Amino acid sequence: LEPPQPDPDGAEARLIELLLSRRGAPPPWIRVDAGHDCAVTADGWALEVDTMVEGVHFDGRLSAADVGWKAVAAAVSDLGACGAEPVWLLLSLSVPDAPDRETWVAGLADGVGEACAELGVYLVGGDTTGVRPGGPRVISVSAGGRVVAAPVTRAGARAGDLLWVTGTLGLAGAGWMLDDPPPMALAALRRPRPPVPFALELARQGLATAAMDLSDGLRADLPRLCRASGVGAEIDPHALPADPWVAARADRLRLQVAGGEDYELLFASRADDEVRVRAAAAARGARVTPIGRVTDGRAVELRGASWPSAAFAHFGASA
Amino acid sequence: LEPPQPDPDGAEARLIELLLSRRGAPPPWIRVDAGHDCAVTADGWALEVDTMVEGVHFDGRLSAADVGWKAVAAAVSDLGACGAEPVWLLLSLSVPDAPDRETWVAGLADGVGEACAELGVYLVGGDTTGVRPGGPRVISVSAGGRVVAAPVTRAGARAGDLLWVTGTLGLAGAGWMLDDPPPMALAALRRPRPPVPFALELARQGLATAAMDLSDGLRADLPRLCRASGVGAEIDPHALPADPWVAARADRLRLQVAGGEDYELLFASRADDEVRVRAAAAARGARVTPIGRVTDGRAVELRGASWPSAAFAHFGASA
Repeated sequence: LEPPQPDPDGAEARLIELLLSRRGAPPPWIRVDAGHDCAVTADGWALEVDTMVEGVHFDGRLSAADVGWKAVAAAVSDLGACGAEPVWLLLSLSVPDAPDRETWVAGLADGVGEACAELGVYLVGGDTTGVRPGGPRVISVSAGGRVVAAPVTRAGARAGDLLWVTGTLGLAGAGWMLDDPPPMALAALRRPRPPVPFALELARQGLATAAMDLSDGLRADLPRLCRASGVGAEIDPHALPADPWVAARADRLRLQVAGGEDYELLFASRADDEVRVRAAAAARGARVTPIGRVTDGRAVELRGASWPSAAFAHFGASA
Repeated sequence: LEPPQPDPDGAEARLIELLLSRRGAPPPWIRVDAGHDCAVTADGWALEVDTMVEGVHFDGRLSAADVGWKAVAAAVSDLGACGAEPVWLLLSLSVPDAPDRETWVAGLADGVGEACAELGVYLVGGDTTGVRPGGPRVISVSAGGRVVAAPVTRAGARAGDLLWVTGTLGLAGAGWMLDDPPPMALAALRRPRPPVPFALELARQGLATAAMDLSDGLRADLPRLCRASGVGAEIDPHALPADPWVAARADRLRLQVAGGEDYELLFASRADDEVRVRAAAAARGARVTPIGRVTDGRAVELRGASWPSAAFAHFGASA
């Protein structure tokens, strides 16, 4: 009997499964099919799509420019996790007709432009459509990148591997989950900076046996990686890297595993590669922390603790 | 003084312009930048995104499977217009939580699968997100294709060129604009079949000086092609190819130029190439009709008629 596992996907996982269920056999030019952060073609293009819906993934805490930045960062984060250097973006925007429409779109374009310049990617095309008055703004970004070596997927983690995360966890989640978050939590929520140079270094050196970006929080994302790899995991909750403000809070664990929005990298490495992983992180200015181990079986456990509930509409309403 | 031109874009054109205004200089690997049916990279990938919003681009007249078919057909149509063979799709779906959600997504997947199989393209990845209850379903499809020769853009038409369309115009528009359309109009609205094999043949033979697909109707789309090429056009309204049922109607011209949804190909060729264009169409099972001429100046005119008003929310609310 396995211990209960967090399964925040539920209905949404079934929707993606349904959506992809009528695809037929993969063509010969597919190197990595759906089910990872990106699909990868035989000629080395990593491809992914990510969507942000107003009222589900963002609200008034984010300016239009923040939304633009974040949509680009989220797309680039997925490419990096697969070991692909970001190249192009396509952006589709649905906005209701309202007096502030042009101002809002101009703000979005500012954030998109800023993120593209800083993260090194080019917007090759865009599309805008209306929605009925009162309808939500929807921003969908597709992205393509060139893999720098063998693609990194969610599927290669093996029992005994170390599990790592970059950066710290919980600050952006605090910005999203708390009623009155401090400015630094809002800043983390608004302007995620995915560790793409480090992710590419891992890929170049073949150090990651599996990887994905942390957009929905460890509680939701780690089981996805484990399912794809056919393994379990044991995480040390005390090892999760935290900003001092997060570390001092009573709800620290909930913010760190259920808050999401970190856009840090979750990855596995062979235990033997610990020193090389640390060296790669030092070379690329990334902070890395080992947080646990890949295990046999399927259980995804927090050592000595149960997974805090997300108790938050974001995770019920999005995949 | 130029005659008044149809400008159904207005606010929406400004939104796309705003959206793309902060992009910085195009990188060296851009062969065709935004502003055409697709962008094209130096290594021959044509890229585009197209979005359908419930209540704006579709309603209960389309089943979930019809929406899936149409989303794929619209994406493939853009690729064909640029002379690119469809290869992959990414689909992003936003759906409100409702009791029929899984049934609807399964239906959508059926239509997507059917269209992918018939139109020769593979869905490499998908993403689903929630929207707040009552929110619209939004389907965004990005697509990539390989150009079969020099990319075809909207920008190469020259004064004296012939203007052509494939198929017939107006039937799908009748399905969308009329209160009680006949079954064949609804069928045309629900299941567009873009003439991709013919479009690729045009590209291979270098016969199209400019091309785009007709998704919003000649009244909206022809001025876009003319602006991109820096030319005008004179169309013979009596030459517009029509199904007999459309041809017999008093509102024929409105259905044919303002109805949209045809997903036929609008293209220009050198006048000398008329015979070769007709031969290419015969070889690929396409119907082609010359509908007018490219002119000097900027006027986009219907000979002896004024452009009928769309008078329809679809065109006010979408780009």
